Amino acid sequence: MPMPPKTYTLADLAERVGAQLIGDAEQRVHSVARLDRAEPDQLAFCTSDRYLDLLKDTRACAVLLREQHASHCPVSTLIVADPYFAYAELANLLHPRVQYARTVAESAVVDPTAQIGEDVYIGAAAVISAGAIIEPGCEVGPGAFVGRDAFVGAGSILAGQVYVGDQCHIGARAILHAGVVIGSDGFGFAPGKAGWKKVPQLGNVQVGDDVEIGANTTIDRGALEDTIIGDGVKLDNLVHIAHNVRIGPHTAIAGGTAIAGSTTIGARCVIAGQCAINGHIEICDEVTIMGMTGVANSIKEPGAYASGLPARAVQGWRRNVARVMKLDDLYARVRALEKQQRS
Amino acid sequence: MPMPPKTYTLADLAERVGAQLIGDAEQRVHSVARLDRAEPDQLAFCTSDRYLDLLKDTRACAVLLREQHASHCPVSTLIVADPYFAYAELANLLHPRVQYARTVAESAVVDPTAQIGEDVYIGAAAVISAGAIIEPGCEVGPGAFVGRDAFVGAGSILAGQVYVGDQCHIGARAILHAGVVIGSDGFGFAPGKAGWKKVPQLGNVQVGDDVEIGANTTIDRGALEDTIIGDGVKLDNLVHIAHNVRIGPHTAIAGGTAIAGSTTIGARCVIAGQCAINGHIEICDEVTIMGMTGVANSIKEPGAYASGLPARAVQGWRRNVARVMKLDDLYARVRALEKQQRS
Amino acid sequence: MPMPPKTYTLADLAERVGAQLIGDAEQRVHSVARLDRAEPDQLAFCTSDRYLDLLKDTRACAVLLREQHASHCPVSTLIVADPYFAYAELANLLHPRVQYARTVAESAVVDPTAQIGEDVYIGAAAVISAGAIIEPGCEVGPGAFVGRDAFVGAGSILAGQVYVGDQCHIGARAILHAGVVIGSDGFGFAPGKAGWKKVPQLGNVQVGDDVEIGANTTIDRGALEDTIIGDGVKLDNLVHIAHNVRIGPHTAIAGGTAIAGSTTIGARCVIAGQCAINGHIEICDEVTIMGMTGVANSIKEPGAYASGLPARAVQGWRRNVARVMKLDDLYARVRALEKQQRS
Repeated sequence: MPMPPKTYTLADLAERVGAQLIGDAEQRVHSVARLDRAEPDQLAFCTSDRYLDLLKDTRACAVLLREQHASHCPVSTLIVADPYFAYAELANLLHPRVQYARTVAESAVVDPTAQIGEDVYIGAAAVISAGAIIEPGCEVGPGAFVGRDAFVGAGSILAGQVYVGDQCHIGARAILHAGVVIGSDGFGFAPGKAGWKKVPQLGNVQVGDDVEIGANTTIDRGALEDTIIGDGVKLDNLVHIAHNVRIGPHTAIAGGTAIAGSTTIGARCVIAGQCAINGHIEICDEVTIMGMTGVANSIKEPGAYASGLPARAVQGWRRNVARVMKLDDLYARVRALEKQQRS
Repeated sequence: MPMPPKTYTLADLAERVGAQLIGDAEQRVHSVARLDRAEPDQLAFCTSDRYLDLLKDTRACAVLLREQHASHCPVSTLIVADPYFAYAELANLLHPRVQYARTVAESAVVDPTAQIGEDVYIGAAAVISAGAIIEPGCEVGPGAFVGRDAFVGAGSILAGQVYVGDQCHIGARAILHAGVVIGSDGFGFAPGKAGWKKVPQLGNVQVGDDVEIGANTTIDRGALEDTIIGDGVKLDNLVHIAHNVRIGPHTAIAGGTAIAGSTTIGARCVIAGQCAINGHIEICDEVTIMGMTGVANSIKEPGAYASGLPARAVQGWRRNVARVMKLDDLYARVRALEKQQRS
Repeated sequence: MPMPPKTYTLADLAERVGAQLIGDAEQRVHSVARLDRAEPDQLAFCTSDRYLDLLKDTRACAVLLREQHASHCPVSTLIVADPYFAYAELANLLHPRVQYARTVAESAVVDPTAQIGEDVYIGAAAVISAGAIIEPGCEVGPGAFVGRDAFVGAGSILAGQVYVGDQCHIGARAILHAGVVIGSDGFGFAPGKAGWKKVPQLGNVQVGDDVEIGANTTIDRGALEDTIIGDGVKLDNLVHIAHNVRIGPHTAIAGGTAIAGSTTIGARCVIAGQCAINGHIEICDEVTIMGMTGVANSIKEPGAYASGLPARAVQGWRRNVARVMKLDDLYARVRALEKQQRS
C-alpha cells in the first residue's frame, strides 16, 4: 500500500469517531493494519470475541473495540459502539485516495460541446462525447467513455475503461470500477417468423448518489422507462442488471448475481453472490438473499431467503440426486402404506 | 430519450405493419410510450388482458392491439395479430438509431493494410489491425479493437471498447455492445507433472449475420475448429461461450449463462439467465431452459427444462436441506415398513 | 488459423516428446488437426477408445497415441504415455504465437518514470503509469492500462483492454486476456445508520508466474492483505475473485465461477464453471468441484464435490419441487406409520 501522507494523535482519532480513549492521547498513528500484523504506529480493530486471542498479543499502537473487550487489550484502546464502522472512518482518514493530477490528458478526446467542471481529471485516450456534463471534482480514467448528453455528478470516479452510454445519468460521489458498462441496450426482441426483431431500447440509466459499481458489471438502459439504481447502492463485480430494473436505496448486491428485466428490488436489501433474480417480480425492503439463490417469485416479507443445496462429496450427492428424482415414487409408497394401515 | 426526427400519420403506420386502422387516419404520431404514460402524440401497445385497465385510461394517440381488445380502447386502434412485433417495427421507424458521423477519428489507429469500406465510423483511439476488413456502413466505437485479418460485415455496430481478436469473423448487421470480447483463447490445458501446459487455441470465432451480443459477454476462439454463433443469435450481457461451442440460428441466451466447451446448441432455443450448460453435450432445436438451470447431459427432445429449487425463507429452507440430506435414511425406513407389512 | 512458419520431420517431433516413432522418420509435418480433418501433412492425436473409428480412417501424416491404440492406426504413429500432453507440446512448436513487433506505439502513453524492459511491445493507446515496471519480452495490447508502481514480469502478455491497477504485481509468463481487471477495489463496506461506509481497500493483487486469466475476469485488491493467485493458476472467462482470496498453485477455475472474500483455495484444485464459493472458508489441496456447485463450508478432504440437481423436463421438475417442499410432511407421515406399527 502507498505511504500515507500524515499521522494523527490518538486524541485526534478518538474525537473524530466519538471514541472513549484509554491510553496516551499524544501517541501518533500512521496507518491501519490487522490486529496480528500491526506495528507500534498502526491502528487496529477488534469486532468480535473470535479475535480476542489476536487482541491479547497485538503490537498495535491502539485498537478500536467495544467496551466489553477493553480489558483484553494490551495497548491503548478507542472504545466505540461499532468498531468496524469507526475503523472505516479512520481508515479513510489515514489512507486518503491518491488522486490523479487535475488535468485533461493530451490524448483525451473531449467534444467542444461537453461541459467539464473545475478540478477534473481526464485520463489518456478517454472520450467525452457531445453534450456530456462532467461535474467538478470528477476523475475519468484512461480509455473511459462518456456518451452524448450523459451526466456525471460532482466528485464521481470513473476508473479506466468504464463505459457510460448516451444520455445516462451518474449521481454525485459515485465510484465505477474498471470495465463497468452503463447503458448498453436491454435484451429486448419480439419473436417473429423470420427470427427475433430488435425492440429499440429508448430508456436511460439513472444512477443515484454515492453508488459504487464493481469491475465489469453491466447495467442496461430501459426499454421505455429508465433503469434506476438508488442512492447508496453498492454493486460488486460482474453483476448483470437488466433493463427497467429498479433497485432501492442502500441495497448491496454481491459478485456474479443477475437481475432480470423489469424487476423492482427494495431498499436496504442484501443480495449475496451468484443469485438469479427473475424478471417482472418485486422484492420488498430489507430482504436478505443468500448466495446462489434463485428467486422466481415476488418476496413480500422482509427476512432472509435461500434455495439450493450445499456441496457434498460426489458419491453421496449422486445418491441424493437419485433419491430426489424418485420422490414421486416414495410419496406413492407412503400413501399405499397409510391406506393399508387404515384398512 | 433523444427527440425523434419526424412524425408519421396513423395511415402510414397502419400500412407499414398491415394493421386495420380504426380512427382518424391523418392523426400524427411522434414517438412510442407505455400505455399509462403516453401523451396524445404517442403510440402505445397492448399485448394482454392484464393491461386492459391501463388501456381503458390511456391518453395515447393510438394503440396497437389484437382485435379482441379493440372495444376497450378509448382512442384510435391499430389492429394486428401480434401487437408486440408490430410495436417493435414501428418503434424502430419512429426512433431510428442516432448515427455517428461517418468519419475516422484522428486518434484512431488504422493499419495501412486494413480495408475500410465506405460510410464507416471509427471512433477515437480505436485500433484496426493489419489485414482487417471493415465492410461498408459499420460503426467501430471509441477504444474498440479489431485484430489482424479479422472481418466485420456490412452495417455492423461495434460499441466502444469491443474486442474482436485476430482472424475472427463478424457477419453483417451485428451489434456488439461495450466490453464484448470475441476470440480470446479457449480454456485448454493439458495436465502434466509440473502443472498445466497450454494447448494452443488455433481456431477462430465465426459470428453469423444479425447477431446481437450483450455487454461484457465473451466468446472464446476454438481449439482446432471454430466457435460458431449462428445467424440471428441474441446473447445477453456477461454470457460465457467457451471454445468450439456451436449455437444454432435464432437461439437467444440471457444474462450470466455459461456454455462449456465443445457443446452444440440447436436453433431457436431460449436459454434463460444464470444457467450452466455442460461441455461436450448436444441440445436439440427448440429447447427452452429456465433460469439457473444446470444442464449436465444432452437434451434430445424439444420442450422446456429446469432444475433447481425456488427460494424460501431461510428457516424452512434449512429444514428442507436437512431433509434432502437424509433422504437415504427415509427410503430405508419406508422399505422397512413395507417389509414388515408384507410379513 | 494463420499459416505456421515451418515444418518438422517426424523424427524431430518424436525426439521432442520422447515418442517411439513407427513410420517414415523423414516425413514432414506442417501443422496440427483433428483426426477426422487432418490432411497428409498434419499431425493428429488420439486419447481414447472412443476415437478409434476416427483413427481408423484418418488421413493425417502421423498420430500421437498410446501403445494400445497403435495397431488401429493406418498412418505413422508417435507412441507416448500421454498423447494430449505431447500434442500440447508439439502444437506449441508447430504453431508459435504470432508476436507483435517489439515497439512502443506512438499513441501509447508511457510515464517517463516507468521502466520498460527490452523487447517489449506496447500497443496503441495503452497507458503505462508512473513507477510501473514492464519487464523484458512483455506485450501490452492496445488500450491496456498498467497502474502506478505496478509490475509485469518478464514475457507476460496483456491483451488489449486489460486493466492492471496501481501497485499490483503480475508474475512472469502470465497471459491476461482482453478485458481482465486486476486490482479493482474489494467489496468492503461498513453498515451504518445512513447507509454503507466504504472501507478503503489497501491491499494489492499478487499474481504468480505462468498464470493465465480469461477474458473479462476480475480480481479485486485486498482490504488489508493482498489477494494472491499462485503460480500456474488458470482462470477462465468471467470469473470473480473477491478481496483477500488466496488460490494455491496450479488450481484451475472455469468460466463464470465466483469466489467470495477471504476464502483460501488449495493447490491443484479443479473448480468447474458457474460455482459459488462462500467467503471466509478454506478448501484444501486437490479438490474437484463440479459445475454449478455452491460451497458453503470449508472442505478438508481431497476429492470431488457437487451440489444441485440436473435439468429435467419442466413438468417432472415441477412435481419434484413440490415434493421437496413437502418433505417435512412426508417425514412426519413415515414417523406416524412407524409409531403405529410399533404399537
